Formats: sequence, structure tokens, C-alpha cells
Amino acid sequence: MYEGIVQELIDELGHLPGIGPKSAQRIAFHILQTQTFDVTRLANVLLEVREKVRFCSICGNVSEQQTCTICRDPRRDPSLICVVEEAKDVVAIERTREFRGLYHVLGGAISPIDGIGPDDLSIRQLMQRLADSTVHEVIIATDPNLEGEATATYLSRLLNTLEIRVTRLASGLPVGGDLEYADEVTLGRAFEGRRVVGA
Amino acid sequence: MYEGIVQELIDELGHLPGIGPKSAQRIAFHILQTQTFDVTRLANVLLEVREKVRFCSICGNVSEQQTCTICRDPRRDPSLICVVEEAKDVVAIERTREFRGLYHVLGGAISPIDGIGPDDLSIRQLMQRLADSTVHEVIIATDPNLEGEATATYLSRLLNTLEIRVTRLASGLPVGGDLEYADEVTLGRAFEGRRVVGA
Repeated sequence: MYEGIVQELIDELGHLPGIGPKSAQRIAFHILQTQTFDVTRLANVLLEVREKVRFCSICGNVSEQQTCTICRDPRRDPSLICVVEEAKDVVAIERTREFRGLYHVLGGAISPIDGIGPDDLSIRQLMQRLADSTVHEVIIATDPNLEGEATATYLSRLLNTLEIRVTRLASGLPVGGDLEYADEVTLGRAFEGRRVVGA
Repeated sequence: MYEGIVQELIDELGHLPGIGPKSAQRIAFHILQTQTFDVTRLANVLLEVREKVRFCSICGNVSEQQTCTICRDPRRDPSLICVVEEAKDVVAIERTREFRGLYHVLGGAISPIDGIGPDDLSIRQLMQRLADSTVHEVIIATDPNLEGEATATYLSRLLNTLEIRVTRLASGLPVGGDLEYADEVTLGRAFEGRRVVGA
């Protein structure tokens, strides 16, 4: 145990994902000992981020305005919607430069073990976006793991009741992995090879 | 790339030790998305830590006052000084409850490759502490690696000119470990340092 505030810093850092007690200690000492490290700047960015960042009212992506830069961009194709689990996935897909449509961020995946059902995701908002006939294709780009596949199956059944082409990213993504960790080429291939799902 | 402030947060987090771009992104999204995460608290602790925390003017340990809690503690034995590389090592040793003397934090180890020589460490301050005859034993507890050993050798030569007992922590097999997994150097040290057991 350290004296007061040092231990508090270690505890706070330890609440971050992927940071165990040893990493928290190492980071805390880096902050304490490195004169060049601008702790004020990190603190201010932390405060600013919570204050400034909203989620796009259309697609659920992170945004500093009411709607995100992608939804506001008139060059994007509004007839295509790519459905992803997290805002991180939007950035991963944007990096491929393969996709010029819009996104829909679900906010997670169906996972009965974690108590996450369809109602906990922004599926209702997705259905509202599909209510007019603007959208011709929905590309389901949930993670290629158990929860992602379950979500894809659920969505494809739901969307196949509509007059919309429903596709799923091709295999080519390593099974059991996380979409956000896929390299650009693999992810680009997966876009090219997307196939119609359902009957 | 993310919009403005989100990317700034990812960049700032990426400057922390052991945090790569992917970890920085994951932490940033955790901060953004987890409503229960108290970002204001983390920001305030960061600011407070830089403002409050000093290094003990006697031993170099972290402290919220001019001198640290260990140097101020009258129950500690001032005739024993344990020399360590970093303040982190003080906490590790304190956890053993084996040592009741005082510490001296060098602020690193001699490493010609990194351009760190004896003058970059608080060796002069250590010699000043040994100037009166209070201290009877100096225990060198630098890391058992190349830099730590070099530092220990340097210190032991320097200190052996004084009338003070100089000792080094024992090297050997880690307790609870498996002999077959020990590296050759450790196993060799364990042989060198073997002791008579029983009566």
C-alpha cells in the first residue's frame, strides 16, 4: 500500500479495462516520475471527452455533434447500412475504404449469459431507419464470434420480413476473433465476399 | 481516426507505459460508454497526484510530505539501510514485513546503454547519509538483472571503503516455483548460495 493519493491513483487506474494492479502501479509511477509527461493535459482531455462526446442520434456512432460526420456526409450512400456492434467497429471498417454507405451501431451483441437481449440493443431504431424505402441493403457486420453470430441470425430473420437485401460479412475473418482486431486487408476481403443470408 | 477529442484521448492514453494503440482505444471507449465510470474522479486524482506528491528528501521514496512515512517512523531501525532502484521496490519489500530498517531509493540503475551513470543516481546522497556512524549495514536490493548487478558491484566497491557491513539480497529459486522451469543462471546461483540445513 502506498501513501494516500498515490494509492488512490493506482486504484482509479486499476478500474480501467485491461489494467491490472501491476500495470496500474507502473503507470502511476510513470506519471509521478516522468517530468515530461503532461498529466494536466491527460486530466483535461478526460474531462473534455465526457463533456463533449455524444452518440449520433441517427446511427449511434460517437460524435461531437447531434449527428456524426458519416451521417452528415452527403457523399455517403444512404441506401446501404452496415450494422456493427460498437463504434470501434465503424473506425475499423472506415480504415478499409471499402464501404461508402452508412452505419448502425447496435451497442453490443445478444448475449443471454450477460443478460443482453435484443431489447438492450438499438434494433428498434434500426427498424425505424428502414421504415421508408431508402435502404436497399443491410450488411450485418457483427463480430464473428458466438454473440455476434447469434445477433446476425436474429437480425437476418427480422430483416428478411422486409423487402431489403440482407447480407453478412464473408468468412475470411478469423473465427472466434474480434472484428476490431482484424487487419484492413482481411476486413476488406470480407466486405467483397459478403453473401445473402436467410432464405 | 476518430473525431477530434476522442482521438486526442486515445493519443494521450497511448503515451502511458504498456498501453498500445488498441489498449488506448479500448480504454477510451470504456470511459465513453460506461456510465458508472467516474471520469471526473480519475481526472482529479491525476491533477492532485502531481500537485501533492513529492519525493522524500532523505531517502527518495514517494511522499506527500517533506519526508516519507518510513523515514518519519521512530520504530524503524536507523542503523539499517536497504538500497533499492525504485519507490515501487520499497512497497514490494514492505509487503514482506521482514525489514524494519530505512530505505534509500537510487532512482534507477547504472546502464551505459541508456546513458545512466552513477552520477544520475542518488549515490552522493547515500554517501552523505552514511557520513555519521549511525548506519551499521547497507543491504543492496537492486534488481537481479544486468543493470542491477552492475549497480550492486559499483556500490559494494564504494561502500567497502567505509566501516560498514555491505550485503546483497540472496539469489536463488523462487519459492513456490518448479525447479525444472528455473533458468540456468538462477539455478547456478541457487547452487552457489546453498546452505547447510538441519543440525
